[in-house]
Amino acid sequence: MRTQVAIIGAGPAGLLLSHLLERRGIDAVVLESRDRAHCERRQRAGMLEQGTVDVLRAAGAGERLDREGLTHHGLELRFGGAGHRIALSELTGGRTVTIYAQTEIVKDLIALSPEGRIRFEAEVLEVDPASPRVTYRENGVLRTLDCDLVAGCDGFHGVSRAAVPRAKVFERDYPFAWLGVLADVPPSTEELVYCHHDRGFALHSLRSPEVSRLYLQVSPDEELAAWPDERIWSELRTRFATRDGWTLKDGPIREKAITPMRSFVTEPMRHDNLFLAGDAAHIVPPTGAKGLNLAVSDVTALASAIAARYEGGSSALLDGYSSARLRRVWRAEHFSYWMTTLLHTDHSADAFARRLQLSHLEYVVSSKAAATTLAENYVGFAHDGP
Amino acid sequence: MRTQVAIIGAGPAGLLLSHLLERRGIDAVVLESRDRAHCERRQRAGMLEQGTVDVLRAAGAGERLDREGLTHHGLELRFGGAGHRIALSELTGGRTVTIYAQTEIVKDLIALSPEGRIRFEAEVLEVDPASPRVTYRENGVLRTLDCDLVAGCDGFHGVSRAAVPRAKVFERDYPFAWLGVLADVPPSTEELVYCHHDRGFALHSLRSPEVSRLYLQVSPDEELAAWPDERIWSELRTRFATRDGWTLKDGPIREKAITPMRSFVTEPMRHDNLFLAGDAAHIVPPTGAKGLNLAVSDVTALASAIAARYEGGSSALLDGYSSARLRRVWRAEHFSYWMTTLLHTDHSADAFARRLQLSHLEYVVSSKAAATTLAENYVGFAHDGP
Repeated sequence: MRTQVAIIGAGPAGLLLSHLLERRGIDAVVLESRDRAHCERRQRAGMLEQGTVDVLRAAGAGERLDREGLTHHGLELRFGGAGHRIALSELTGGRTVTIYAQTEIVKDLIALSPEGRIRFEAEVLEVDPASPRVTYRENGVLRTLDCDLVAGCDGFHGVSRAAVPRAKVFERDYPFAWLGVLADVPPSTEELVYCHHDRGFALHSLRSPEVSRLYLQVSPDEELAAWPDERIWSELRTRFATRDGWTLKDGPIREKAITPMRSFVTEPMRHDNLFLAGDAAHIVPPTGAKGLNLAVSDVTALASAIAARYEGGSSALLDGYSSARLRRVWRAEHFSYWMTTLLHTDHSADAFARRLQLSHLEYVVSSKAAATTLAENYVGFAHDGP
Repeated sequence: MRTQVAIIGAGPAGLLLSHLLERRGIDAVVLESRDRAHCERRQRAGMLEQGTVDVLRAAGAGERLDREGLTHHGLELRFGGAGHRIALSELTGGRTVTIYAQTEIVKDLIALSPEGRIRFEAEVLEVDPASPRVTYRENGVLRTLDCDLVAGCDGFHGVSRAAVPRAKVFERDYPFAWLGVLADVPPSTEELVYCHHDRGFALHSLRSPEVSRLYLQVSPDEELAAWPDERIWSELRTRFATRDGWTLKDGPIREKAITPMRSFVTEPMRHDNLFLAGDAAHIVPPTGAKGLNLAVSDVTALASAIAARYEGGSSALLDGYSSARLRRVWRAEHFSYWMTTLLHTDHSADAFARRLQLSHLEYVVSSKAAATTLAENYVGFAHDGP
């Protein structure tokens, strides 16, 4: 089989890339090891930057997003028993963020995809960036897909990254994990609450007007079995408590899971005719909600660069892809690290570090400039090509 | 002997407090263990915040400062072989910083002091915050000074801090020291250059149009003997080098010294009738030039609080002194820590941390909001009482 662009992975990065290329008349095949139902079920992030919404909308993939997405103009930082609003829109010239689950974006993009363009249960075994060629197994049979370019969108555990020789790896494990729950209870807040407490970070997010998404900082070696529902609600109530008696509504917990937090970057993001995008190249801790948005930013730039090659005959954008993306990636890595260390409680930190953290929090909510640094990173920078 | 306020230490904090009280008709005695010549010779900081200049000017101690001080409207961050201007005044509604050496402030304040108000070579042996009373030795004779209040302005190594029982101490040693030189050569730059280099931080400051002040990050266990003048100039040239060929003028080095970098805070800053101010209560690393300015801020607040007690009969400001000051102290500690870690090279840092640092530097010079956080802290907040 032959195509112009072989895309490995049917997560949001691979699906959006496929869609953006299709709209420009560029042929692509998406190879995905799991089945469609699995892809459409995976629970992941749900906070879209302004630029991510802009890209989806411009690509004709924003119809349901516009109908069901919840637009937010601010968020709350809560610490010391008091809340402080960060006016995201006011501080960024009117930009907003939108709550719309990644899993819904995946469904929308799969639904938009022409028959046969996505091959589910097609497991990629090998990527040859030079030929270029992808070897995969489908229905028990080994097949090859010849192509001009390969886009590695197969996430942290995929095979693409290993096909970049002599890559330099940067990583950081945090002494924190998130215990996340999806609960059938209307959110207790209209805007997200990022809460710092001596006992640890907590986040009140939401999925819809009926479904709350709540997170608790726990130790990375914590066992889910140690967290029966009542303990989760009790701990959430303790951390979110305010001096003016804010109350947290509880309800049935539908899903719960513990996710470790890490930062990871591989450099370069391109080797020969293979281009990495999304989690295949970088992982951020979830605090700043940058993971999905960074993946969208990658493939937006990659689609423009690929189009420039086919339409204009210039490889300049493709040649500059890795270095341009890495600048954006490191901005997101830094912001995610910053937001993580600002809000989490490092139980091994000394008293000096704890005082610095509290002073830093006070500063972010009392200085317009400091609040703006949070806001402009949180709503994100434009995804304007590489 | 008896006075209203016993001030321990004739550094800038003690001298300015004495002067501010005198202008309000409040009696004070300054006890200083060293002789006048020593006090007037000590080389220390030289960068005054806008608020510090305002206080000195309003107190009638700004005549020579206005004549000889050098007003700066910006500074340069240099890294990766390129300079980036931080427009301090533009970003802060017109605020400026002024180069005027601490040692000159000390001379000005001593000259303004009435005969006998400062007792040099009077070594304080004991502070009794309850009586209150200060015991000191002068000309080999033990004497006591009875008073209403004691101001501990005797620096990190003074006796005042030890008179606060059950104090909580916060500290941090940095893996950096500054090798500072005073050189008889016109500055190679009009505005200060804060330079980050893989080999370490460097700072080009100045004392006057004829005298340069230069600093190099070195290891805290570095020996001065290992740094002959030519090695210092060579290392400075390497770190300050730019892609467009900026040149550093060299000349005779008049003084050189290595200073370790640390953060230190003691809480509370008040016990009974004893009030700590300046380095007696807190030390910052020198990167943000906050030490002297924080001391001025302390004594400005303390003078207002003391005046409120004598003039209005209210101790409310004195009672709130420690907690109000500590908020400002921790803001300065956080900024100094931030500026130090932003600019110095931690040779033990991993590759991830190094990339974060470079991304952070790029962000500070490319985001107006981020540059403003640096600028507003650097020019400082108003010294408006406690």
